[in-house]
Amino acid sequence: MLIVKKFGGTSVGNRDRIFNVAERCIEDYKKGNDVVVVLSAMGKYTDVLIDMAKEINPNPPKREMDMLLTTGEQQSVALMSMAMASLGVPAVALNAFQVAMHTTSAYSTARIKRIDTDRIQTELEQKKIVIITGFQGINKYDDYTTLGRGGSDTTAVAIAAALHADLCEIYTDVDGVYTADPRKVPTARKLDQVTYDEMLELATLGAGVLHNRSVELAKKYGVRMVVRSSLNTSQGTIVREGSKMEKMIVSGVAADTDAARVAVIGLTDEPGVAFKLFNALAKQNINIDMILQSIGRHGKKDISFTCSDEDADLAKQIIEERMEFEDIDIDKHVSKVSIVGAGMQSNAGVAAKMFEALFDANINIRMISTSEIRVTVLINEKNTERAMNAIHDKFNLGSAE
Amino acid sequence: MLIVKKFGGTSVGNRDRIFNVAERCIEDYKKGNDVVVVLSAMGKYTDVLIDMAKEINPNPPKREMDMLLTTGEQQSVALMSMAMASLGVPAVALNAFQVAMHTTSAYSTARIKRIDTDRIQTELEQKKIVIITGFQGINKYDDYTTLGRGGSDTTAVAIAAALHADLCEIYTDVDGVYTADPRKVPTARKLDQVTYDEMLELATLGAGVLHNRSVELAKKYGVRMVVRSSLNTSQGTIVREGSKMEKMIVSGVAADTDAARVAVIGLTDEPGVAFKLFNALAKQNINIDMILQSIGRHGKKDISFTCSDEDADLAKQIIEERMEFEDIDIDKHVSKVSIVGAGMQSNAGVAAKMFEALFDANINIRMISTSEIRVTVLINEKNTERAMNAIHDKFNLGSAE
Repeated sequence: MLIVKKFGGTSVGNRDRIFNVAERCIEDYKKGNDVVVVLSAMGKYTDVLIDMAKEINPNPPKREMDMLLTTGEQQSVALMSMAMASLGVPAVALNAFQVAMHTTSAYSTARIKRIDTDRIQTELEQKKIVIITGFQGINKYDDYTTLGRGGSDTTAVAIAAALHADLCEIYTDVDGVYTADPRKVPTARKLDQVTYDEMLELATLGAGVLHNRSVELAKKYGVRMVVRSSLNTSQGTIVREGSKMEKMIVSGVAADTDAARVAVIGLTDEPGVAFKLFNALAKQNINIDMILQSIGRHGKKDISFTCSDEDADLAKQIIEERMEFEDIDIDKHVSKVSIVGAGMQSNAGVAAKMFEALFDANINIRMISTSEIRVTVLINEKNTERAMNAIHDKFNLGSAE
Repeated sequence: MLIVKKFGGTSVGNRDRIFNVAERCIEDYKKGNDVVVVLSAMGKYTDVLIDMAKEINPNPPKREMDMLLTTGEQQSVALMSMAMASLGVPAVALNAFQVAMHTTSAYSTARIKRIDTDRIQTELEQKKIVIITGFQGINKYDDYTTLGRGGSDTTAVAIAAALHADLCEIYTDVDGVYTADPRKVPTARKLDQVTYDEMLELATLGAGVLHNRSVELAKKYGVRMVVRSSLNTSQGTIVREGSKMEKMIVSGVAADTDAARVAVIGLTDEPGVAFKLFNALAKQNINIDMILQSIGRHGKKDISFTCSDEDADLAKQIIEERMEFEDIDIDKHVSKVSIVGAGMQSNAGVAAKMFEALFDANINIRMISTSEIRVTVLINEKNTERAMNAIHDKFNLGSAE
């Protein structure tokens, strides 16, 4: 079996942790598997490098920033290879040049285009564990690039796809994907498996252990992923394409408290108003989530939407400059609570059951939005945990599947 | 003019020093010169990385060690490029892959084979300052190598040779090459120029500001070098091929206190004894310097030689195991004092004048060795500084040329 294993910065943060990871990899290697390891920079070292750069230049050229940051992963992989050597196992550390990991040209936000597998294959054939720098690539100018947030997960999935690996294990500090955040919902239960689409919705909602980019890539190439803990040997959660038969109706409950509701009252009810409004916001890179538009009356209509807490004031300012309306109101004390489940697209009563749970708990729903496999409600922020528990209980998510 | 400028770790050890170097480079750039900068890792960062590695594996694989160490220079060049950008000058940082800097395969002790100049030329044509990682290369396996001691100086000279640069400036913490160590000889004077051969002898004698490898390379390709201070703007010392007319008879006095004398008394006087003795030492990598063999008498002869203090006891042990003799004596309280000068090969009285200076100072000469441009004497270590001053005065080296 060919296994790609990805470990984040915390997992390689010091000597003992490096050896812990080395031993886990060697365990699989000694069972006769081919093992490829993808690593992030140690601990918070990327932040240390960013601070060094900012001290020199508060606005450093992105190309040079990537040149600096890529040293972090290179150090991790070199040290890991040394650890494996000291345990008597042949290993080889490779960086983005050596792989080679081709990306788009965009420094700091590059996307993987193509991975040469020759070198990796050659090293695997020589029965070495291959340790690869996550997060980094090279572009057509032969310059280093970095992949931005979630980069190392994406590297791991891309390598698994390129090598047609049997499994891509993403090691993290949690046991897997839960039906809800266990810190907020005591009865939350670890899921044995979720579908790519469920994982994508969960990631978007901030419940995600995985970054969306890596899940999208895994879905596209059918890479079988597992999310599991680097601290224990529990089985983790498998992320894969699920057949309908196996699907639970609802897989989990997620909440995002970083939400603000902006209500624009008394806009002129004429064609193009919504376009004008959201176009102005998009130009300033303000991401809009839920949108509610009232039915027009007396030539006026209201539009409400949600954005991040951080963007709310800027959104208000832009609307005041560009639009004509009667009143605008911002409420930052709101949160989004969602249920996610691949089974709900064929189960009509799911949303109603969620609303019932909230009604029973006397929680008012401010806005609603849905996708094929998700229902999201906007509620008062102070009710977030109560809502999550009420919904979790209603769908009986704490019981084994 | 195309200038290659090399700065060591101390010169880029912190933010202020990085900016100091950036400004010096920009000064030349603004005069219309093409500027290539070669940097070492910051301060003692290479040692930090070595310690990290040893903590993981006391005997780390050399390939992985080089993979780790090369991150040091990559950080320096990236930060320097950011500093130049903040001063409004376009710059680009390149590592061994990007250059590309081809070396032999030997990890940790690689030698430069070939430097591609395409990328450097392209960047220079775009009027950028090009900042290159010293000390590192890549081998035919596409793996990082490092060049060992004096590596960054060697990188700078090799790049200057490959680009046919007009000048290769080696910045250091001293003003240049002196007639003697100013800490020991108060009247020591900075030399405006020395020949490659003189510099080679001085480097060998430990007086060297430059490592021999870089000087040999400069001599081979006729690269005009300057050794100068990164702390001030004094002119430094030019190292170049000198015509005889310009040569001083003696350029400088150097001393090496890391010397021990081993005397082997009463060896059998038969052919092959010296071979057997020095072959045994060579096999254990003990470097031998001065050798004195007595004229055989009564079927016996004595052989004395010098080695480093550190190797003396091992040398004694090897000789005791392998040779037959009457007595062996080690004296670690000796030092080598040398005069170096390209002019002395055509000036017969130079050695005699040196011996006269020592006689006047009542200093006993224990051994003598000479090369075409050097005379070295072994003396009691406690007389080292007195001998240097006596010789320095005798040759009137403190006066301007």
